[in-house]
Amino acid sequence: MSCFKIEKSSGASRAGWLRCEHGEIPTPTFMPVGTLGAVKTLESRELEQLGAKIILSNAYHLYLRPGVEILKQSGGLHCFMNWHGPILVDSGGFQVFSLNGLRKVTDEGVQFQSHIDGSFHLFTPEKVVNIQRAIGADFMMPLDDLVGYPVDENAADKAAQRTWNWLLRGMEEFEKTEPLYGYRQILPPIVQGSFIPHLRRREAERLANLEAPFYAIGGLAVGEEPEQTKEAIEISLEYLPLESAKYCMGIGLPHDLLDAISLGIDLFDCVIPTRNGRNATLFTLKGRMNLRNAKYATDQLPVEENCQCPLCMNYSRAYLHHLFNAKEILGLKLASVHNLYFYFQLMKSAREHILEQDYTNWARLIRDDLANKI
Amino acid sequence: MSCFKIEKSSGASRAGWLRCEHGEIPTPTFMPVGTLGAVKTLESRELEQLGAKIILSNAYHLYLRPGVEILKQSGGLHCFMNWHGPILVDSGGFQVFSLNGLRKVTDEGVQFQSHIDGSFHLFTPEKVVNIQRAIGADFMMPLDDLVGYPVDENAADKAAQRTWNWLLRGMEEFEKTEPLYGYRQILPPIVQGSFIPHLRRREAERLANLEAPFYAIGGLAVGEEPEQTKEAIEISLEYLPLESAKYCMGIGLPHDLLDAISLGIDLFDCVIPTRNGRNATLFTLKGRMNLRNAKYATDQLPVEENCQCPLCMNYSRAYLHHLFNAKEILGLKLASVHNLYFYFQLMKSAREHILEQDYTNWARLIRDDLANKI
Repeated sequence: MSCFKIEKSSGASRAGWLRCEHGEIPTPTFMPVGTLGAVKTLESRELEQLGAKIILSNAYHLYLRPGVEILKQSGGLHCFMNWHGPILVDSGGFQVFSLNGLRKVTDEGVQFQSHIDGSFHLFTPEKVVNIQRAIGADFMMPLDDLVGYPVDENAADKAAQRTWNWLLRGMEEFEKTEPLYGYRQILPPIVQGSFIPHLRRREAERLANLEAPFYAIGGLAVGEEPEQTKEAIEISLEYLPLESAKYCMGIGLPHDLLDAISLGIDLFDCVIPTRNGRNATLFTLKGRMNLRNAKYATDQLPVEENCQCPLCMNYSRAYLHHLFNAKEILGLKLASVHNLYFYFQLMKSAREHILEQDYTNWARLIRDDLANKI
Repeated sequence: MSCFKIEKSSGASRAGWLRCEHGEIPTPTFMPVGTLGAVKTLESRELEQLGAKIILSNAYHLYLRPGVEILKQSGGLHCFMNWHGPILVDSGGFQVFSLNGLRKVTDEGVQFQSHIDGSFHLFTPEKVVNIQRAIGADFMMPLDDLVGYPVDENAADKAAQRTWNWLLRGMEEFEKTEPLYGYRQILPPIVQGSFIPHLRRREAERLANLEAPFYAIGGLAVGEEPEQTKEAIEISLEYLPLESAKYCMGIGLPHDLLDAISLGIDLFDCVIPTRNGRNATLFTLKGRMNLRNAKYATDQLPVEENCQCPLCMNYSRAYLHHLFNAKEILGLKLASVHNLYFYFQLMKSAREHILEQDYTNWARLIRDDLANKI
């Protein structure tokens, strides 16, 4: 049985269900990022209360800390962090890619130095599968080789080719191994190909032949122009099976999510709501606010009127401004809380509008306001 | 009507009720410290869930940030921080005392430079009353002059004398002014006198003549020996009216609280549970644990077995160790949560044992374990 089912479409956008043994995820959905086994500042029960349906973590970071042995001993990441909903775990390809100077990519895998203690490590496609078995990810991303932007065609070609080879090796290892905790795990292929249309097309085409129920589109959000992101998504979607789930890795701002949904994307992850929140940037339907701005010092309104989140229900902009001004940790948490709630509500509304077949109109009405800085 | 009533005594220790318009506080009680209008890392609703009955804040800090005007505009600190239980606000005498080199004490008041921007300010007993009116503290501490340890007798004498004069001026200002938010405020006198027995006695005696329902014992926890703390408390208690509430400022570790309760103290405040928590020190009935210790990396037990706090109910020592190791903010919060819950439960148990008339036995049984480092 496929892990994904489309309930209804509206234009190219779709309302669906992604299934795994830890739960059913209504799509479109946004995955908050818990790199190190915690979505920064938040308890797992708070995530659930805010509306998280699935969270994302990172094999590279968990491998370094707390390490595979402790995760195994704890019964996997779900038990370790006491989150019993679905978890998708990225391989860490992107993190290793960011370790410029500390890494060396060969056909065998990626050699890198830990950003913590400089120790040497090798990630192979096989090793990443086994790390993910120990983590117990419901959805485990294979090791991929990604390139930055701008990039020359040869490098992009080589990286895409390598990603394909690594996927085949990862799938083989996946078939040869068993889950450690008794529930099924899923290995979604990742489309690479950088921003070179014919490469992106080639990768999408050969991945399409795998007839997977769930694909990721990777290599985006590395500094390219918005039109290039859009083109890379469009090419990927053109070739991947329509009925499969599509996860657009590392995207993005609220209006980016709406744009990608209108193309046919179902899943997102991004550090923006939590990271920007910790920098005092709060998302609202009218745009982004910077709560450090002096004008909020005396502002008795909630960050967003009619918002039902624990920040807006209980505190004023003046209080949040004060917390940031006084460097109180609580400010980081309340801003993260609001931003995640905002993202979850946005995805919930998107889903409702897809089900009501008026997604395009609705998204057009709110999109430009979302992109504002106020 | 007095704001304090003793329900039952057991030896010198007492179970009572402290009342103000924001609520009734069972005593003995511990007040968590929310210096800047937030108990670090915690939302007000979380404090309530953990069992806080009253919180403490600080006039010096609130005066500097967010400032009196914003507090007034917000309807006082209760509304600003969305805590609708009782609040006791310290004058900031202790904080100004800590500004060595940045302050100058005269009979008029204390001149000091802000620790934030170096700006010059003058706190007088009258000004502190008016700041506290703006804050809207249920219990507003008068400005006092405290000395450190060791101290010479002349300096201690002069500071105690000045504290008395400032109290009279503060009381006069208190009588001349009205609450700003419609509920009654209470100004409890503070006994000073350092560790010079006859000075401590003189101050306690003259404060006793005021027949106040609520007294604070100040000038402690400034580096003195435990026996000196005990002696200063004992002298103060000997002269103050038995039926009044006694608040021992800035104390202490769990076993210090039990010791002080056995002398007849009813209220405490201290940064220890939250500050030590943020340093990975967790309190348990078996003693203090440092969760950074490598032995906890693989420890699947909760910090304290049978503890019902949100840390121990949901997470292992291994997870908390990992959070501290990875510098995740969530670790600071979960440690604070556990430590505050531990303090609240300790006060709750103390009260039950006083009501059951076996406080002394109970405290003797658990006291030495509490003082351990494990």
